[in-house]
Amino acid sequence: MTDTALVIFTPSGKRGQVAIGTPVLAAARQLGVDLDSVCGGRGICSKCQVSPGFGDFPKHGVTATETALSEFNAVEARYDEKRGLKPGRRLGCQATIQGDVVIDVPPESQVHKQVVRKAAATREITMDPATRLYYVNVREPDMHEPTGDLQRLTEALIDEWELPGLTASPRLLAKLQTALRKGEWSVTVAVWQDHDKGTPALIDIWPGYFEGRLHGLAIDLGSTTIAAHLCDLRNGQVIASAGLMNPQIRFGEDLMSRVSYAMMNPGGATEMTKVVHEAMDTLARDLAEEASIPADQIVEAVVVCNPVMHHLLLGIDPVELGQAPFALATSDSVKTRAAEFGLSSINPDAQGYMLPCIAGHVGADCAAVALSEEPYKSDDLVLICDVGTNAEILLGTSEKVLACSSPTGPAFEGAQISSGQRAAPGAIERVEIDPITKEPCFRVIGCDLWSNEDGFDAATAATGITGICGSGIIEAVAELRIAGLMDAKGLIGSAEATGTNRAIPDGRTHAYVLYDGTTEGDSLITVTQGDIRAIQLAKSALYAGARLLMDELEIDHVDRVVLAGAFGAHISPKHAMVLGMIPDCSLDKVTSAGNAAGTGARIALCDISARARIETEVKRIEKIETAIEPRFQEHFVAANAIPHATAPFAELGKVVTLPDLSFNTGPGGETGRRRRRRA
Amino acid sequence: MTDTALVIFTPSGKRGQVAIGTPVLAAARQLGVDLDSVCGGRGICSKCQVSPGFGDFPKHGVTATETALSEFNAVEARYDEKRGLKPGRRLGCQATIQGDVVIDVPPESQVHKQVVRKAAATREITMDPATRLYYVNVREPDMHEPTGDLQRLTEALIDEWELPGLTASPRLLAKLQTALRKGEWSVTVAVWQDHDKGTPALIDIWPGYFEGRLHGLAIDLGSTTIAAHLCDLRNGQVIASAGLMNPQIRFGEDLMSRVSYAMMNPGGATEMTKVVHEAMDTLARDLAEEASIPADQIVEAVVVCNPVMHHLLLGIDPVELGQAPFALATSDSVKTRAAEFGLSSINPDAQGYMLPCIAGHVGADCAAVALSEEPYKSDDLVLICDVGTNAEILLGTSEKVLACSSPTGPAFEGAQISSGQRAAPGAIERVEIDPITKEPCFRVIGCDLWSNEDGFDAATAATGITGICGSGIIEAVAELRIAGLMDAKGLIGSAEATGTNRAIPDGRTHAYVLYDGTTEGDSLITVTQGDIRAIQLAKSALYAGARLLMDELEIDHVDRVVLAGAFGAHISPKHAMVLGMIPDCSLDKVTSAGNAAGTGARIALCDISARARIETEVKRIEKIETAIEPRFQEHFVAANAIPHATAPFAELGKVVTLPDLSFNTGPGGETGRRRRRRA
Repeated sequence: MTDTALVIFTPSGKRGQVAIGTPVLAAARQLGVDLDSVCGGRGICSKCQVSPGFGDFPKHGVTATETALSEFNAVEARYDEKRGLKPGRRLGCQATIQGDVVIDVPPESQVHKQVVRKAAATREITMDPATRLYYVNVREPDMHEPTGDLQRLTEALIDEWELPGLTASPRLLAKLQTALRKGEWSVTVAVWQDHDKGTPALIDIWPGYFEGRLHGLAIDLGSTTIAAHLCDLRNGQVIASAGLMNPQIRFGEDLMSRVSYAMMNPGGATEMTKVVHEAMDTLARDLAEEASIPADQIVEAVVVCNPVMHHLLLGIDPVELGQAPFALATSDSVKTRAAEFGLSSINPDAQGYMLPCIAGHVGADCAAVALSEEPYKSDDLVLICDVGTNAEILLGTSEKVLACSSPTGPAFEGAQISSGQRAAPGAIERVEIDPITKEPCFRVIGCDLWSNEDGFDAATAATGITGICGSGIIEAVAELRIAGLMDAKGLIGSAEATGTNRAIPDGRTHAYVLYDGTTEGDSLITVTQGDIRAIQLAKSALYAGARLLMDELEIDHVDRVVLAGAFGAHISPKHAMVLGMIPDCSLDKVTSAGNAAGTGARIALCDISARARIETEVKRIEKIETAIEPRFQEHFVAANAIPHATAPFAELGKVVTLPDLSFNTGPGGETGRRRRRRA
Repeated sequence: MTDTALVIFTPSGKRGQVAIGTPVLAAARQLGVDLDSVCGGRGICSKCQVSPGFGDFPKHGVTATETALSEFNAVEARYDEKRGLKPGRRLGCQATIQGDVVIDVPPESQVHKQVVRKAAATREITMDPATRLYYVNVREPDMHEPTGDLQRLTEALIDEWELPGLTASPRLLAKLQTALRKGEWSVTVAVWQDHDKGTPALIDIWPGYFEGRLHGLAIDLGSTTIAAHLCDLRNGQVIASAGLMNPQIRFGEDLMSRVSYAMMNPGGATEMTKVVHEAMDTLARDLAEEASIPADQIVEAVVVCNPVMHHLLLGIDPVELGQAPFALATSDSVKTRAAEFGLSSINPDAQGYMLPCIAGHVGADCAAVALSEEPYKSDDLVLICDVGTNAEILLGTSEKVLACSSPTGPAFEGAQISSGQRAAPGAIERVEIDPITKEPCFRVIGCDLWSNEDGFDAATAATGITGICGSGIIEAVAELRIAGLMDAKGLIGSAEATGTNRAIPDGRTHAYVLYDGTTEGDSLITVTQGDIRAIQLAKSALYAGARLLMDELEIDHVDRVVLAGAFGAHISPKHAMVLGMIPDCSLDKVTSAGNAAGTGARIALCDISARARIETEVKRIEKIETAIEPRFQEHFVAANAIPHATAPFAELGKVVTLPDLSFNTGPGGETGRRRRRRA
């Protein structure tokens, strides 16, 4: 019998000799294997469960006998009786090594668990949150060695977890004494330590072993909507999501109107900060309620947003962002108490983090997109467009990444469109127009059927057909072009010229009737010349931004395009390319990243090394300022046309050849709002 | 002509060769000479004024010609014209070295200025405050290199002042942008950096060169009174002082009654925290008003107090301090925002510091006394008694220091005394009783005359004679003993036994009439048997504490005694020793340190190295817990007698021999309150 034994951990493959009698948990630590433990090896938390393998392992060159681990002990038996241990499982802190053995660490026992994102891409998030739970035994006070409770807790965290120092707010000092005594000198603490590995901070404390979980908020604070995910900080799972309109809309729909509001109204910025703080807190409360967790178990918040929202959230007057040189108050990441984000209902000691900004017009939201999509790791040339009220555009490869922001306006979000509405049940989101009959069919949010399919009317009876959302208007305009109802300049032909009475006069121009529900008391949904103009302006801005970056890299073709943004997720690549929103590219190379900014926020919430990474990468990204670049204007004007009537379809095997119509119409004029709602 | 010249700075005597053309300020920095500068050498702040000396300096072995410094330049001329430069003075940043020279740095140009304390002792405070002003030029924003204003400010502080990193609260981020633009990219910032040399924090910012000064509060938060000094952080001068009654008195006069209040009343601790916070803030506002400074120029607060007040100030339930093992929530120093001390009217980013506690009964106030009196540096054996509602006692030498706390009760502060009052105009503070005639004479606060001197009545007409304060009652009781009116057990003899009709019956015992103003509508001020009993209890507690420490060191004699505490400052050493308050010691070795706790707070406010020092020293101090030490009770009982009728006077050459009277009286009984006030 030797004094040591060979231990091989799977799936990591890490192996080494350990002394006979070493607990599996200690062996894992010696060999650098990720094996979780909250209670520090006291048989309480069960996070260190392992599955030992016995028998021959030719691959590993080892044979493990049944006696390679110590026998099931009393602690394990009690745990099994109380909470149940899966067959074959052992507690790593109880079982000791007695001979050569192969030990599998199941995914739920790995500290750095891999979480597969639910969206199309299979991006993995490493779990390494800033705030974690630690269970400790604290030395009892001794009158003859009068150290404070905090000092003895700190001592225990150093001894048992190698966490240096510890700061605690007066609120927690007040809580500390009760918790220690109620837990009979055993407590579970939530401790925050950021990626700079500075002094850890106590976030909360519970007597004994705390059964609950810690949660964090990943918040994408947009100009128009605020979206938040409530995440479990143990495994990164999103346990509830919610969205709210940004209440600042009443001060101005786009960012520049809010900056103007702040400039024109003393106290205006403060007012806008107040309402967004209220909304943030409402969202947090709603999420906690939905997930049935106490709000004080939310201990972290990561916020991504554009620079104007960034300033307004922090209570900084955004006026400097409204004029060259667009100086940010701070460009680095912001670390502060989450209460400074207005989150006053969550844990009072919760920490807040905002990703760094890239430039005065390119914010933490763009940094979050970069963190999620990683252009700086890309082998091929990728163009990433985060489409919203402003489009954030990234272009580059692992060698160099450029970024800019382009003021697309709210048209892509269904605003400033005659029948526009935000993406909600009842909104038309997909459109096809038959190029022969010129008749449309469409789908509405909340129903999987197309409008020409049986059962559509019944399925949509509850919501009605209420308007058209961002992705719907893009498809409608593109389909008008494909169906030969509209020319390259964006003019809709008359009923005579197009051969369909869906083309109706609208002032001095024409509109296309997508849906006429007026007889059933529903809406009349049309695409007007004004709508097309709004879309043309928006898509020209997006395209011009992308072109500007391409000029800078001296290229005229990108390898792939990623469309991001809550709305970008729903854009049909085909229609986007017909419209000329994005540069030409193989259609199968255009993908959607969903809400990449939100994903970036989640990554930063779950993994502090990602925070360190993006803080470094952001400094390498080169910023191009569209507002002062003459070529941006040139590209913008040149991009006004809607170029493709056919081209992209070749790839889809759906070639339709149409004459290049040219209509005689007067100059495009704005039309009144036509949308009517059900009574 | 050589390329370098010899420069000698006085008073430091530092000398060295510097290149011809080096500005005096730069030369001072090269040679490690303390020469102040806020503007970083731009001729704005004038803090770097020097007095060059010309002629022969045989002591230094150098001859300085008139041309050893460059000529008076335009910047100096402008400064002289605008604000006046004393004759012979030069601006160190403008004058350059041209030849061998001796340069004197006047005290006001030294960074580490020495401040002589105003009290008797000549303790010096080194000026090295945590928060200082820095004047910087910040790079303008550049659209093509889009860093935030905070990042460019940080860069300037690194370049010009070698201050690494910088954190700023959202409030200051909001202020930053306006200040930078208003100051045309020159600003003065207040930056806090503590003795651990961690990340500096921005405290405030002003456009251009800020003419104002930074201030700090040194607060001695006692059980009965709160005393605060407003200090100029440039030179340590106290520019205003104020005191308030601690409003917690209504929840209990002594600490243990407040602890009981917290135990018996849910929310009681919170209530007590609220009222003390309000009082702290009132005091801060009053001081700012008195000194005519904006309250936001108060950027630091140092608080010293006993452990119960420490907990109640921070909102921590003090219940653990009411029972063994008297565990503190935290024993280390507390660094937090001053707002956590209730100081909500001063600068919102002001930092707060509380000195470390020594033990559950020996608080930051005792640490402050140690910092002020430095027993840990003493060559001889020193006993330091900080006398208040509790007495904090330190005993030791540079080799070893012991500490304990003793519950003297409020008698020494004039409370629980029949004619007692707090030290205020009208209160009797000094007493003498003629041993022959048994007639008293006394002095009252606010009048320098004794009561038997001409003009006393007129001088005290305004205040009246309203009662007797702590030092007065001690002298009265001691004088009663010396004059043979009272025996060693503390019993006052009858008129018959003592031969004076000032001894009047008072229930079953006797009282001594110190002052009868009833015919003029003034008070009747007596010393009753109950008063003597209260003083006996208090002095026994103090003496027993001191003895306990002496036992621990196995000594029966101390080399010197320091009496501290706002009231300790007024105790007459002679009378204290007659009473047996303190162990026997040469009378000339008994000194008063004034409010040493308050002085310690001022030192910690002005000098961060003192914070580091006391944090280290406190760990070396050995704590003795009186509450559980049986010998404390023994000493307490044994100390009840009032031993000396004559002994100490031998040293003063004022020997009076008196018979050891023994009165026939019944057991001592409490008497009603006799004090009457003027109508």
